Amino acid sequence: MSTSPFLGELMGTLVLLLLGNGVVANVVLNETKGHNAGWIVIATGWAMAVVMGIFTANAFGSADAHNNPAVTLAFAVSTGDFSKMASYIPAQLIGGFIGATLVWLSYLPHWKATPSAGAKLACFATGPAIRATVPNLISEILGTIVLIVGVVALGKTQQIATGLGPYLVGMLVWSIGLSLGGTTGYAINPARDLGPRLAHALLPIEGKGESDWGYSWIPIVGPFLGAALAAIFLGIFGL
Amino acid sequence: MSTSPFLGELMGTLVLLLLGNGVVANVVLNETKGHNAGWIVIATGWAMAVVMGIFTANAFGSADAHNNPAVTLAFAVSTGDFSKMASYIPAQLIGGFIGATLVWLSYLPHWKATPSAGAKLACFATGPAIRATVPNLISEILGTIVLIVGVVALGKTQQIATGLGPYLVGMLVWSIGLSLGGTTGYAINPARDLGPRLAHALLPIEGKGESDWGYSWIPIVGPFLGAALAAIFLGIFGL
Amino acid sequence: MSTSPFLGELMGTLVLLLLGNGVVANVVLNETKGHNAGWIVIATGWAMAVVMGIFTANAFGSADAHNNPAVTLAFAVSTGDFSKMASYIPAQLIGGFIGATLVWLSYLPHWKATPSAGAKLACFATGPAIRATVPNLISEILGTIVLIVGVVALGKTQQIATGLGPYLVGMLVWSIGLSLGGTTGYAINPARDLGPRLAHALLPIEGKGESDWGYSWIPIVGPFLGAALAAIFLGIFGL
Amino acid sequence: MSTSPFLGELMGTLVLLLLGNGVVANVVLNETKGHNAGWIVIATGWAMAVVMGIFTANAFGSADAHNNPAVTLAFAVSTGDFSKMASYIPAQLIGGFIGATLVWLSYLPHWKATPSAGAKLACFATGPAIRATVPNLISEILGTIVLIVGVVALGKTQQIATGLGPYLVGMLVWSIGLSLGGTTGYAINPARDLGPRLAHALLPIEGKGESDWGYSWIPIVGPFLGAALAAIFLGIFGL
Repeated sequence: MSTSPFLGELMGTLVLLLLGNGVVANVVLNETKGHNAGWIVIATGWAMAVVMGIFTANAFGSADAHNNPAVTLAFAVSTGDFSKMASYIPAQLIGGFIGATLVWLSYLPHWKATPSAGAKLACFATGPAIRATVPNLISEILGTIVLIVGVVALGKTQQIATGLGPYLVGMLVWSIGLSLGGTTGYAINPARDLGPRLAHALLPIEGKGESDWGYSWIPIVGPFLGAALAAIFLGIFGL
Repeated sequence: MSTSPFLGELMGTLVLLLLGNGVVANVVLNETKGHNAGWIVIATGWAMAVVMGIFTANAFGSADAHNNPAVTLAFAVSTGDFSKMASYIPAQLIGGFIGATLVWLSYLPHWKATPSAGAKLACFATGPAIRATVPNLISEILGTIVLIVGVVALGKTQQIATGLGPYLVGMLVWSIGLSLGGTTGYAINPARDLGPRLAHALLPIEGKGESDWGYSWIPIVGPFLGAALAAIFLGIFGL
Repeated sequence: MSTSPFLGELMGTLVLLLLGNGVVANVVLNETKGHNAGWIVIATGWAMAVVMGIFTANAFGSADAHNNPAVTLAFAVSTGDFSKMASYIPAQLIGGFIGATLVWLSYLPHWKATPSAGAKLACFATGPAIRATVPNLISEILGTIVLIVGVVALGKTQQIATGLGPYLVGMLVWSIGLSLGGTTGYAINPARDLGPRLAHALLPIEGKGESDWGYSWIPIVGPFLGAALAAIFLGIFGL
Repeated sequence: MSTSPFLGELMGTLVLLLLGNGVVANVVLNETKGHNAGWIVIATGWAMAVVMGIFTANAFGSADAHNNPAVTLAFAVSTGDFSKMASYIPAQLIGGFIGATLVWLSYLPHWKATPSAGAKLACFATGPAIRATVPNLISEILGTIVLIVGVVALGKTQQIATGLGPYLVGMLVWSIGLSLGGTTGYAINPARDLGPRLAHALLPIEGKGESDWGYSWIPIVGPFLGAALAAIFLGIFGL
């Protein structure tokens, strides 16, 4: 078999979610070595997950390495070419689902050791610190705008093409997580939330509760809206 | 519309404050996911905010990417050309104001959840750990001298021009925050303090207290003095 | 005497274990300055240990800088050339043994100050958070797959050849530690576990307990299995 | 006035100590914003202090950027040319003294707020976690050997010449601090300890105690011995 953009997006998003949700499991589940290790561990883990997801996507055939349907949408809006969405987004969702499943497998004995259903869900999908529809949506929109503006700014200043590029995108997500992640847990990526939430719903996790589908549209709609707004805003300035 | 140095300084400082004050909000406000996450989160968040502010300023048209009136002053003193100050400093103040406003918007439900007026002010403006005019001024002067010496040292050794440059300026601010930020919270940037303090005074923040205007001149005068002293000191050695 | 691949693998793994197990000692042993400093310190210390181990291996004559028998196996499976295993793996085991011995020497007064035999063993060998053979094996297999996929992805995108390469491999191990290390302590390297476990068994450590040989096969078999599986998986796609 | 190697070593070591001891003051002194922020803050602060010290030394005229008499000794042993020691070491000591004095100035109101004389001394000089002459000496020797081997390994693999070099030396010191700093606080640099200890003895610090001169020879002799041993060891392999 050969590599392809589809495989690249799938494998990149898989690694992103395995390492990204892995750090949540390490901090949130009971009896882990990183139990209660704090926000610095969460945000750093996600940042490095982004770096490794990009290199993996590149190696498996996606030079774009979006790993995120909102990023794919932003570039579609920006270029007027929406053709990549039909293949990239399914690949990203499948990757997110498999990545989340591997987190479940990796932390297998810890699900039973953790009584809280909420803690278990947090290892799959995002949830708001304070539940409030419009503010939660705003948080996701703003976080995604910063992501898109940052990715484009890095690209315009030609960092992406160098070896430093994927690392700097990781720093961008480190920044967003540390600074803007405190409200809704910075999904800023529909595949990051929906893929794992489906995994949570389907996997035989001991003592799991509901998958909180009532909230699930916010980390989809928010990032897509933020990405479209960012692309339009950047387009005004020819960026 | 086209990009410009004015727009670059505005957008760069906006991103700097959105991500910089965002991390303070995450750590200081109640019921956030990063509540009480400690100084490592604060300092790392600000460091990455600096990195992303520089790339953003570059992309939107400011190759200088000062994002700080004290840096603009230092280069003016150093070159004898003060012409940039008239456009850069207003852009930086406007960017700081808007960035702070977006932090307020991003953390919307958390202002009500936080009873302490002091905690809320800390998400906008700096304040001293121990209030004492001359020592507080000295702290801001010293911190800014280290900033200017560091930026010039990085520039002289030709790091700024490479992709690594903005990252290393972020490391410099990481260093200043970790090491010298414990006293006055390292404003080292008049726009970082005045812009958000104005936003605090004007925004309808639930249960906010005073904006502590009595202290507000120190994070303006200290950084300007430090920047001028640093420029003169560096000039003695032809740097 | 001259440098050689054997010496490079020995010195690289020595530095890896001295710095890697050193951070565990700092966090786990009593009366140290880093006592109870948390998972961020452990994971960051191991990441930097990897970076320094690679540069050291390079300088002492191993351009490969595997420092890990599982990585050596993966490249052997991938290339079909198993000839390096006979010299690299003994070098890595000797390096791991000496590195662990130097940790014992460096923290000499702290062994007596630490009553817990389990804490002392943790400064040498890995152990599971929840003891369960198959899940522990799965954790080590998955962690090693991510390591091999990541190293190959970094190599394919030509980062390894640049100065940034070893640093990015460190970031990869930072990521694995933060995200997947919470279950078995991410040996992902037979020499990292077996070499130091032998040192634990042989050194005159005050109040040490058993060396937990019953568990010792998991951090050997798991990483070897994971490495072989990863090499085969990557081979399917021509990577 | 013009820059020179003497000025470079002085300014580089000044910045190293201002930022290095600054982070200790932030964590150790009372009523600071970083009070009790933990070992991750200490080690990260020192790592970044090293990075900024190197760039500063470079900018002010020292291409070597040793900022450490033990590093100067190691290169003297390695090359057989001891001529730099007579000018570099006084520059480094003066820089260390002034840097420590600036930490005192920067944290001016916090000395009175901190009753513990030991905490105040820790902001200047190193001290052992468990006092024991031979083990403390061994810790400093081992830490310095890792420093010298690391610096030479980075140099041999040509990282120092690139923009990445100083950053990687900072990562090396991050590693040493996280992993080997838990015993004696990793002086690994006679100027880092003696210069600030002199400042502690001479400055009018409120409620300071003794300067612990009985211990002061260990962070001088240990690093010098370690550096000489490392240079000889490296020389055996032609490094």
